[in-house]
Amino acid sequence: MLPETIKWEDKKLTLLDQRLLPFELRRVVCESAEETARAIKEMVVRGAPAIGVAAAYGLALAAANGGDFDEAAKLLAASRPTAVNLFWAVERMKDLYHANKDKPNDEMCRVMEAEAVKIHNEDIEINRKIGFYGQSVLPRTGAALTHCNAGALATAGYGTALGVFRAAAEAGKEIKIFADETRPRLQGALLTSFELSSDGFDVTVITDSTAAFLMSRRKIDAVITGADRIAANGDAANKIGTYSLAIAARFHGVPFYVAAPLSTFDLKCASGADIPIEYRDGREVRELRGVKVMPEDTDVWNPSFDVTPRSLITGIITERGIIRAPLAENIKKTIEEDR
Amino acid sequence: MLPETIKWEDKKLTLLDQRLLPFELRRVVCESAEETARAIKEMVVRGAPAIGVAAAYGLALAAANGGDFDEAAKLLAASRPTAVNLFWAVERMKDLYHANKDKPNDEMCRVMEAEAVKIHNEDIEINRKIGFYGQSVLPRTGAALTHCNAGALATAGYGTALGVFRAAAEAGKEIKIFADETRPRLQGALLTSFELSSDGFDVTVITDSTAAFLMSRRKIDAVITGADRIAANGDAANKIGTYSLAIAARFHGVPFYVAAPLSTFDLKCASGADIPIEYRDGREVRELRGVKVMPEDTDVWNPSFDVTPRSLITGIITERGIIRAPLAENIKKTIEEDR
Repeated sequence: MLPETIKWEDKKLTLLDQRLLPFELRRVVCESAEETARAIKEMVVRGAPAIGVAAAYGLALAAANGGDFDEAAKLLAASRPTAVNLFWAVERMKDLYHANKDKPNDEMCRVMEAEAVKIHNEDIEINRKIGFYGQSVLPRTGAALTHCNAGALATAGYGTALGVFRAAAEAGKEIKIFADETRPRLQGALLTSFELSSDGFDVTVITDSTAAFLMSRRKIDAVITGADRIAANGDAANKIGTYSLAIAARFHGVPFYVAAPLSTFDLKCASGADIPIEYRDGREVRELRGVKVMPEDTDVWNPSFDVTPRSLITGIITERGIIRAPLAENIKKTIEEDR
Repeated sequence: MLPETIKWEDKKLTLLDQRLLPFELRRVVCESAEETARAIKEMVVRGAPAIGVAAAYGLALAAANGGDFDEAAKLLAASRPTAVNLFWAVERMKDLYHANKDKPNDEMCRVMEAEAVKIHNEDIEINRKIGFYGQSVLPRTGAALTHCNAGALATAGYGTALGVFRAAAEAGKEIKIFADETRPRLQGALLTSFELSSDGFDVTVITDSTAAFLMSRRKIDAVITGADRIAANGDAANKIGTYSLAIAARFHGVPFYVAAPLSTFDLKCASGADIPIEYRDGREVRELRGVKVMPEDTDVWNPSFDVTPRSLITGIITERGIIRAPLAENIKKTIEEDR
């Protein structure tokens, strides 16, 4: 049984330290917005939906602790640049704070805490719906490929891309999963493999560059990944390597799906070119789990995300169904219907 | 200055242990065909042309040591399955042995040793010619991408793909090189980066799955890799990840070149489907330079090579010029002219 990524206990946020998984199950306790922002920045918690939920709790903590709320919101929003769920959660909590800040302090804190818990529970519910719609694209028996970790560990629970596999299993389907190891941090090998094998799935890890060869040698029914931000036109930013995978999928005629909640869409970005890409220190590539694998003077270019153009995306699996081409038009329609 | 991969000293074969580079410069001495075969199998020496040269010396040692020559040849041929230069060198030495085995032992040994030295020197000469022809595809200033290590370290010296970069530099061209790190063994990060920076090149390492994103963000003038075996129709086996790179290059309109000596062609393989692919233990992925990076029970699929179909290859750079489409026809012609 997989441990929970995010817990709210005794009015404190406790996060499963994903940097140590699966070797160690250790929890980090955050008692302030500052501590939460640091946990996001240092990747104690990662995965766009999980970051959003953690930030919501961070702002419940900010409200409870007093101090400059807007500064706390700014700090959290600056903790990582690509995942938009973070900004979405921060905005939602900020709006609520300003609507309630003239109320008695106790009541305001209660409202803020309740909203963070609501965002947390909504995320699980949304993931179940993503799974429900998404599993329809998988056959009764077959194989699928995923990248990074878009699972229970990356969300409040259940998962987006991995939620699709869970829902398929619940529907009695037998899907063999291949997981890209996902350099530089190996979330596929360390988190997805751990998460899926903990829950009884048949999962095999490959190095990232093996994906195309795999597609040429055995039938892969679908590639399904998460997303960190999706532009109005359907271009999707996700963990570095997703774009490469989408190109390989297209070359082999394998359907490529993105599974993500509607909070991942950022209509202010007209296209992928508008999505800011996070570049992290080269050390992340030169070292692996604290061990130096390359000389320190190795020059490294280390973007954490890439952008998959909509032309390579078969469909975007959301809690309101699968959005298909023409993506720009159908994204707009889906989001309007959801309001 | 880069140390030599292969040396023949005091009638012994000494190999630079590539598993320790660039952290340690240690040499392994082989005094028999058996020791040479082990060094190839365990990847003390790697790179298709270098393996061929090492095997030739291994058979010079077998002739000098006495014992069953044909058994020694069989052992060397079985040390790794994909690189055809190995079989080519073994056959060449075997033919010579059988043509000379009735001669006085001293003379036969001298002939065998001289032939191995000749194969060694020929390889350097061939690489210089590959460089000469190959550098013409590069602009005066620009950027190129390579995978794994097809350099001086993978050959008797100078290199195939990296030889092209060397020749470009000698012609006054300024080419910025990007090197895929090349999981699982990181030959790109550890060998190519070390080799090129040792020789004054501007080289930057990326994770393998970053290559496609790099091509979308900056102009890459060419992708150039080596090859371990090329079929009669032009399909080319090379280090896992090459195929993925070729697909990404095609998607971005970047020319994709393979640089390899004619000894890499195996006309007995009609197409890539006939090339045997080596699968190595999953431990190679789960561990990195002896450090466990994934749990031991992680299931891994670990092919060491993949096959790039000829349709994705812009040209094959050889010591007889660049072979272009129609590849099957022009490969046949080039090899016949070379005889």
